Amino acid sequence: MPHLRKDPLSDRWVIYAEGREQRPNEFERVERRRLDARCPFCVGHEEDTPPHIATYRGAGVANSNNGDAWSVRVVPNKYPALLARGCTDPMQRGIYVLCDAVGAHEVIVETPRHVASLTQLTPEEAQLLMLAYCDRIRAIQDMPGIKYALVFKNVGPEAGASLEHAHSQVVGTPMVPSEVQRELTACRRLYREHKQCFFCRVIRDELAHRLRLAAESQRFVAVCPYASRMPFELWVLPREHHSHFERQTPDQLEELAGFMQRVIGQLESRHEHCAYNYFLHTAPFDTRPLRHYHWHIEIFPRLTTTAGFEWGAGYYINPVPPEQAAAILRSGGENRG
Amino acid sequence: MPHLRKDPLSDRWVIYAEGREQRPNEFERVERRRLDARCPFCVGHEEDTPPHIATYRGAGVANSNNGDAWSVRVVPNKYPALLARGCTDPMQRGIYVLCDAVGAHEVIVETPRHVASLTQLTPEEAQLLMLAYCDRIRAIQDMPGIKYALVFKNVGPEAGASLEHAHSQVVGTPMVPSEVQRELTACRRLYREHKQCFFCRVIRDELAHRLRLAAESQRFVAVCPYASRMPFELWVLPREHHSHFERQTPDQLEELAGFMQRVIGQLESRHEHCAYNYFLHTAPFDTRPLRHYHWHIEIFPRLTTTAGFEWGAGYYINPVPPEQAAAILRSGGENRG
Repeated sequence: MPHLRKDPLSDRWVIYAEGREQRPNEFERVERRRLDARCPFCVGHEEDTPPHIATYRGAGVANSNNGDAWSVRVVPNKYPALLARGCTDPMQRGIYVLCDAVGAHEVIVETPRHVASLTQLTPEEAQLLMLAYCDRIRAIQDMPGIKYALVFKNVGPEAGASLEHAHSQVVGTPMVPSEVQRELTACRRLYREHKQCFFCRVIRDELAHRLRLAAESQRFVAVCPYASRMPFELWVLPREHHSHFERQTPDQLEELAGFMQRVIGQLESRHEHCAYNYFLHTAPFDTRPLRHYHWHIEIFPRLTTTAGFEWGAGYYINPVPPEQAAAILRSGGENRG
Repeated sequence: MPHLRKDPLSDRWVIYAEGREQRPNEFERVERRRLDARCPFCVGHEEDTPPHIATYRGAGVANSNNGDAWSVRVVPNKYPALLARGCTDPMQRGIYVLCDAVGAHEVIVETPRHVASLTQLTPEEAQLLMLAYCDRIRAIQDMPGIKYALVFKNVGPEAGASLEHAHSQVVGTPMVPSEVQRELTACRRLYREHKQCFFCRVIRDELAHRLRLAAESQRFVAVCPYASRMPFELWVLPREHHSHFERQTPDQLEELAGFMQRVIGQLESRHEHCAYNYFLHTAPFDTRPLRHYHWHIEIFPRLTTTAGFEWGAGYYINPVPPEQAAAILRSGGENRG
């Protein structure tokens, strides 16, 4: 039975999801992974996934075998880490705490066509993808016992992706994830200290001196954060203060779609087929608009490998300072690696 | 100039070490990495590394070209993350904190012969390696401004190793690493709650019910921790309570050497050429023997890849519960994967 266990030393939660051992590529060494023989995410292969939860349709999309047309398609994860039923109350067992693995685990197929990169989506598909992020967060918010929905994307085997076809995931969790909780606590403290949202301050500073600014649009900026853990790490931030991503307007989402494609394009122009993760940090469900928190997307290129020092110390070693990374990204990857 | 920056949101330190870009395999994708053309760690190639800091010699070792004979050899890291000189006082720059990258970064070559696995060391080499761990921690303790020495080992490209020849590393840092600090804080709290060292309690429980016990010897146990983040994660613990590894006796170190070889052998018997990291957590330099802290070695097999969910949430997904992992390891890897 899948369940969650809490590490008494770090308060980290670990999800035990035994069924996931059967996932296509789990446990195969990176170099032995095969390209998808038959892609379950391509149009016409809808029966290879569980039935859809939602579909989004643009103009002029291709019909599937089942006759329904879609541009973006949301399905339950075939190997879910969390299940819809169970009890979210933690149980004490001696010195340990555990609870049922209650939650949601969905896959968002970003296009009916077999393409790997976000930059290969049509503008319409990219916009529908951002809309799907919003919609799924709102839908998971209504599920009993679920406190948070994390949207994320894995691209390339080094980033943990097991399929190539462009897709994102959403996981609904029975507690606010520790990384989000940590940010919320720090942002509250920094707000008290500086009388300003930390991220608003970062945006103001970076737009002024442009040292770590990678890209900007009317409503968004992309910066390489001051203490980037990984080379070419990026934060995508709305210029205007908003704590909840799922309350963005369709106009804002439309601009975000194009901006994300542009920023990922800058990264891929520097590192062809760059493996990366991105994830969306937004305020938890049970909060009203927060003055101290600012939703953002963190892009995490997987160009270096975390080793014993990182795991054992909690330090990171980064050979590329963010000032250098931002300059390279701004130049459109002319200094190609 | 290499330096450390602190992330205001997580208090994580990041080391900016620009020279490390020139390391042999940095930035090459895993599948493109070449096997070492000429191994700088083999006997006779001593001039390929900086001059040694220390050497350890067993009976009947081969002479190098330089005439000196060694079994285990300690050299400065050619691409150090931290440097010997600088100021360890943190400096405030606007909303950010940084400091000079002061510390030590050493490599311990575990044998003159080109072998990859700890299990291929002679018993004498393995014992000298444990002795070298102790010695280097004690030596780094005397360096000004250094508060901690982390011993670790990376095996295989998936674990961040850039060379195959068996080697470990020691990094001296100007502050106690956050992962160690977090354990110390949790162990102090758990000691107050349970009137017992947390690790002593774990050893007692695991020896009683043997659910997660992978191996035992007269003085040591290896357990798969209750909330293992990775499949086949292991803790190696001395049965007797000790907070400081570097105060172990030669007898204890000798037994530990054989025990580590046995445990790594169990892991490799299950997963041939298993990539892994291990690191040694011991109490900080400036502490007297602590009742609430227990030194240990954490072994971290790299069989799964951390993806967007792990980075974004701080949760881990583990498809192999530690009870199952321990049973497989105890059976000597008969259920070979």
